[in-house]
Amino acid sequence: MTAEIIAIGTEILLGDILNTNAQYLSRQLADMGISVYYQSVVGDNETRLIETIQNAMSRANIIITTGGLGPTTDDLTKETIGKVLELPLIEHEESRDRIIEIFNKRDIKMPSNNLKQAMIPEGAIVLENNNGTAPGFIVTKGKNTIIVLPGPPNEMIPMFCEKVKDELYKLNEGIIHSRTLKLCGIGESTVASMIQHIIDNQSNPTIAPYAKAGEVHLRITAKTNSNKEAIDLIDEMEVKVRNIVGEYIYTTDNKTLEETVVDLLNNNNLTLSLAESCTGGLLSSRIVNCSGVSEIYKEGIITYSNEAKMKYLSVSKDTLDEYGAVSEQTAREMVEGLIKNCNTSTGIAITGIAGPTGGTKDKPVGLVYIGIYYKGTITVKKCNFSGNRQKIRDRAVVEALIMLWNEIK
Amino acid sequence: MTAEIIAIGTEILLGDILNTNAQYLSRQLADMGISVYYQSVVGDNETRLIETIQNAMSRANIIITTGGLGPTTDDLTKETIGKVLELPLIEHEESRDRIIEIFNKRDIKMPSNNLKQAMIPEGAIVLENNNGTAPGFIVTKGKNTIIVLPGPPNEMIPMFCEKVKDELYKLNEGIIHSRTLKLCGIGESTVASMIQHIIDNQSNPTIAPYAKAGEVHLRITAKTNSNKEAIDLIDEMEVKVRNIVGEYIYTTDNKTLEETVVDLLNNNNLTLSLAESCTGGLLSSRIVNCSGVSEIYKEGIITYSNEAKMKYLSVSKDTLDEYGAVSEQTAREMVEGLIKNCNTSTGIAITGIAGPTGGTKDKPVGLVYIGIYYKGTITVKKCNFSGNRQKIRDRAVVEALIMLWNEIK
Repeated sequence: MTAEIIAIGTEILLGDILNTNAQYLSRQLADMGISVYYQSVVGDNETRLIETIQNAMSRANIIITTGGLGPTTDDLTKETIGKVLELPLIEHEESRDRIIEIFNKRDIKMPSNNLKQAMIPEGAIVLENNNGTAPGFIVTKGKNTIIVLPGPPNEMIPMFCEKVKDELYKLNEGIIHSRTLKLCGIGESTVASMIQHIIDNQSNPTIAPYAKAGEVHLRITAKTNSNKEAIDLIDEMEVKVRNIVGEYIYTTDNKTLEETVVDLLNNNNLTLSLAESCTGGLLSSRIVNCSGVSEIYKEGIITYSNEAKMKYLSVSKDTLDEYGAVSEQTAREMVEGLIKNCNTSTGIAITGIAGPTGGTKDKPVGLVYIGIYYKGTITVKKCNFSGNRQKIRDRAVVEALIMLWNEIK
Repeated sequence: MTAEIIAIGTEILLGDILNTNAQYLSRQLADMGISVYYQSVVGDNETRLIETIQNAMSRANIIITTGGLGPTTDDLTKETIGKVLELPLIEHEESRDRIIEIFNKRDIKMPSNNLKQAMIPEGAIVLENNNGTAPGFIVTKGKNTIIVLPGPPNEMIPMFCEKVKDELYKLNEGIIHSRTLKLCGIGESTVASMIQHIIDNQSNPTIAPYAKAGEVHLRITAKTNSNKEAIDLIDEMEVKVRNIVGEYIYTTDNKTLEETVVDLLNNNNLTLSLAESCTGGLLSSRIVNCSGVSEIYKEGIITYSNEAKMKYLSVSKDTLDEYGAVSEQTAREMVEGLIKNCNTSTGIAITGIAGPTGGTKDKPVGLVYIGIYYKGTITVKKCNFSGNRQKIRDRAVVEALIMLWNEIK
């Protein structure tokens, strides 16, 4: 079974947009044991799109397209696929009603061209879009199955996970099963060198490491004839890996680090309060993005200025004057104030220099202090991160989550 | 003049690597007025690589490849291009000496296969690599020019800037210039229908709309013989567009919405304080990601629980009991409390139901109230957003930024 990925959109060819969809889909297909031999990008141009689709149809069983489903006249993915497959576009009633409803809900007058998004090639399976107005669809003709998805990743990814994966499993023979062990607090090259002998001798299941902002993911993939067989093979491999790097594994359930931490807090009847300076709400925002967080998270304070650190966290003026806002002492007093003011069983405070300005020789950009409170003890860690402002703030948030996970687990 | 970009590497087709090279090169070529109609990705496989290169040669004048120049046997870009162009590979003495020198400097014994990297098709212009061992090259045959670059971005980008750009300027005629008008507070389809007559009659400059989470970007591109001519054409088009949708344009300077708002606050000597419930720090985090925010942003409060809303913002228990935490009344009291407690000239409060649980018939998931304080007046807006938890929170943040921008501008 082979697949080909086509991203459609002039904005990609102009370099305005990075084609992250192709990477996402490639990885998903690799996990399912479906080979991808080509990815391509073509603009919103009928002639070139026809050529690209026909070329792909001659080379692969499955063609997945992303983009070109917008309401404007330059979006012509559906019209062109209809032409290539000689299928008329027909209004899909349910989709039309959904689009109208979305505009009603927003209390905005719907421009009539939005109804173009409800037009679907005859005979296609419609893929409802829960995050936008453009539905996707799957259409089969002869040996080819064409899967048409919207371009925005926050619409494409949920649609792929919720609706396309199952269809692909049906098309694909044999069973592919994979499990991702997520590790934190250890680097990719260290993990790779520790399990090198396993990587060198892998055949089925295979194991592959991926680096991800402060984390390492190890993906184990088995190809077999039955689910049970696949799970047994993966279990066996997981035990081998756990014997070497088990202490760094935080989940095998496809949860994020923050979801793991929130679960851990929930299961231990703990609460969390946050005080953020340089991260400015980023940690809080990641915690709040976990559904069901209301039992463990009540309040957070963003103390960007020194005045706010004194006002909300009772950091002393002397400490700020003597050691500065980015110091172990200030981080410690931020945690102390947080615990005193919020009735909470765990707490995190972050203060640092995210740059690009504000660094000095003694306190360079990337210097961040993270303080954690758990079971009566405050621990403060000094970190030096590299990268731009966004990257430093991201790394600080991940490090804080890792520290709290290590304390409680 | 047209160009085509081919990334070579099985690791991209497996989704292990994101193809950022294609975006970089596309943008560079767009800026130089060279049209890119296709990007493609192919693995380290001779048959498929030959097909891809021949296909590209039939469609474009210039072909730029990245990747496949490593020392191992699976790297076969040069061998394959030599085959397609019927040119033998010849050892390039200078490159051989450089490679040997690099290993001597690192004090590492050079594996003999590294000398493969000094083999170059006969007659090619060699592009020295200052950041790695693999040289690139430019080779011309008939109407085609093939430019072969290494895969790692930190080798490819300097080689492109220092050596390839000048060659491309020589090959190319004419100049291209583009400008992006960024709009907020209006949907893509509405913008498109309002400027449809301009889109329909476009030739030079061209104009194209792109949707982006709560925003619409209009990109104007002109192809001319001089910079001045291009800018004049774009200015003229901008005036036409401004006459129709001018009130929605927040920048033409390639700034983000939050950077525009932060600039506006800075320029008007205003300060901002934030009170967030369902967005949980997301708005604050986007504001803090703008460098130089410390003059305008001092503090924010995340009041996820009712208790926190009462404690930090003096929202009355009666209001919470009678109208609920997600209500116009609570949003208003949150802003009032924020203004009273923080010495600030503008303030935003957000409260809503981000889901997936917690919705009711009267108050469905996606219901969000946003309160803004500016010049003595509080405005509260009721919004209904669709999508998953992340999407609803994102949309609430964008809406809050738009509301504040509208108040101050």
